[in-house]
Amino acid sequence: MEVQRHLPEIERRMLQTVATTGLVREMIRYHLATGGKRVRALLPVWVCENLGGDGEAALDLGAGLELLHNATLVHDDLQDGDTHRRGHPTVWHRWGMPQAINAGNALIFEAFAHIARAPAAPRILEHVAAALVQVTEGQAMEFQLQLPPGHVEHLPPTLASWEVMARGKTGALLAACMRAGAAAAGADDEVLESAAAYGSDIGLLFQVQDDYLDLVGDKGRARRATDLMEGKLSFPIVWAHEHAAPADVALLRALLDRPREQRTWEMADAALGALRQCGALAATAAWLVAARKTTEEHPVADLVPGWAAQCLAPVAHALSMCP
Amino acid sequence: MEVQRHLPEIERRMLQTVATTGLVREMIRYHLATGGKRVRALLPVWVCENLGGDGEAALDLGAGLELLHNATLVHDDLQDGDTHRRGHPTVWHRWGMPQAINAGNALIFEAFAHIARAPAAPRILEHVAAALVQVTEGQAMEFQLQLPPGHVEHLPPTLASWEVMARGKTGALLAACMRAGAAAAGADDEVLESAAAYGSDIGLLFQVQDDYLDLVGDKGRARRATDLMEGKLSFPIVWAHEHAAPADVALLRALLDRPREQRTWEMADAALGALRQCGALAATAAWLVAARKTTEEHPVADLVPGWAAQCLAPVAHALSMCP
Repeated sequence: MEVQRHLPEIERRMLQTVATTGLVREMIRYHLATGGKRVRALLPVWVCENLGGDGEAALDLGAGLELLHNATLVHDDLQDGDTHRRGHPTVWHRWGMPQAINAGNALIFEAFAHIARAPAAPRILEHVAAALVQVTEGQAMEFQLQLPPGHVEHLPPTLASWEVMARGKTGALLAACMRAGAAAAGADDEVLESAAAYGSDIGLLFQVQDDYLDLVGDKGRARRATDLMEGKLSFPIVWAHEHAAPADVALLRALLDRPREQRTWEMADAALGALRQCGALAATAAWLVAARKTTEEHPVADLVPGWAAQCLAPVAHALSMCP
Repeated sequence: MEVQRHLPEIERRMLQTVATTGLVREMIRYHLATGGKRVRALLPVWVCENLGGDGEAALDLGAGLELLHNATLVHDDLQDGDTHRRGHPTVWHRWGMPQAINAGNALIFEAFAHIARAPAAPRILEHVAAALVQVTEGQAMEFQLQLPPGHVEHLPPTLASWEVMARGKTGALLAACMRAGAAAAGADDEVLESAAAYGSDIGLLFQVQDDYLDLVGDKGRARRATDLMEGKLSFPIVWAHEHAAPADVALLRALLDRPREQRTWEMADAALGALRQCGALAATAAWLVAARKTTEEHPVADLVPGWAAQCLAPVAHALSMCP
């Protein structure tokens, strides 16, 4: 992608932190060095240039939004208890819980320092902040969906709740990236709203695909259905709660309502069989095919040419076989 | 204080959140209801009006800065493992670690949404973000100071490090409040810098006083020297590390380098005796007397009339007996 030529300068800005004292700066640099595709850094620049704007105007926005994404990763790893990310010990695993909270918070504040510096800041900042509140809401809902039905904070697994969760957790920040790029180009409000909606759609699509791949592919993990073993309320599972026969739902809950350490791969295979049999896998594939069509026809799809197709590449082959 | 008349409106704005879904909103409201004096909410309005500005222009800044303060409290309670705040279970104690991280983050983002809305936002936002990075640095250093000397992240207890820590942890946000108020009044850059410096000074003074009170008073706790029992590297202890005889320092380290559960009140009393005998308590009192004088004579002291004296009220009696 042509926009990638901006990557070295964005990386430079991301590392140009306000933080001066050793440990916070060290943790930020350590985490950023674990890598990532910098999608949220490039997206605003890409959109801005395709709207005829000067990509320079979007560099601080891109750097800031990418830092916000990385802040959520540092905190996510702690929240989920993940000890490694891309082969490296996670920040909390290396420096402990209190310092990982500090590191994530510092990344958030560094991000706002960058965004405040951008020419489009006055037009975009409140939206970015609101999008990040949505991210926290999505994360909160994700935990609630995983609680057993008897728990006071349990959120019943409906497709409506699931979509709010996914649009929050993954869509809101991508929406903010799209909006930021349009704002940097000086586009009018209607374009900003449409761009943001497209970002949210892609986030949703990406999440459904991720859930689908866990059941049919292996997401690069040792085996299938690890989401089931982790008790994650994925799209196909929520679909089954709404559409499957009680016996199939019971097979799922037999796994989900058990503490993690009591789940077995035999249970996961039984649950996976139930998902296949009740039509949840087919319905998810059909959802993805329809979503691909919708994104291709979206009014602002040409601001990020090929992005949707690229996002869907991991399931493209599987979907080509769908009716 | 006359400025208190703005409190109901600021409270209203603090509760006017972007958050719509149940749990994040509920946690925010729960935490805010535990109370607090709302010093960081009122400070910008107070400064703004005393500079001849319209207090209205500082309301969103005050609401945002107070939300930032509360975000740090939600995360602090988790980091420190404190189960109660002002008689109520802390957010992490009630909803668990992952949700407490979400709640604190949501408060941060809500805060920036408020600040972005303020007329002075373009002038103040980057400074607020940088101040909050300083807060995380102060918090990171506080943990590092408490690590035993052999630990790879241990920070040697020097008064210079201690001051950076305290100015970060407590001073930076008060500095941002003072600066925000001056910006809301449209003051020139020199006044903004001076106001921020005063806020930082008061933060430092407040921290030294807090440390002093723990050793001579009881801070409303069951007994003295709880900081020592918690392994906190307070100002008098750091002073002793720089000035006391090795035998006195050894008495302190005997307590500090031991795991919390192995510390006894007898050791704490011995350490307290060492602090008294080596002159650390007298030096702290002398520091406070000098700081009181400096703040009274500060060029912008009249922007917050009586604030320094009010902050020092808890030790005023003790200090009146100092030479």
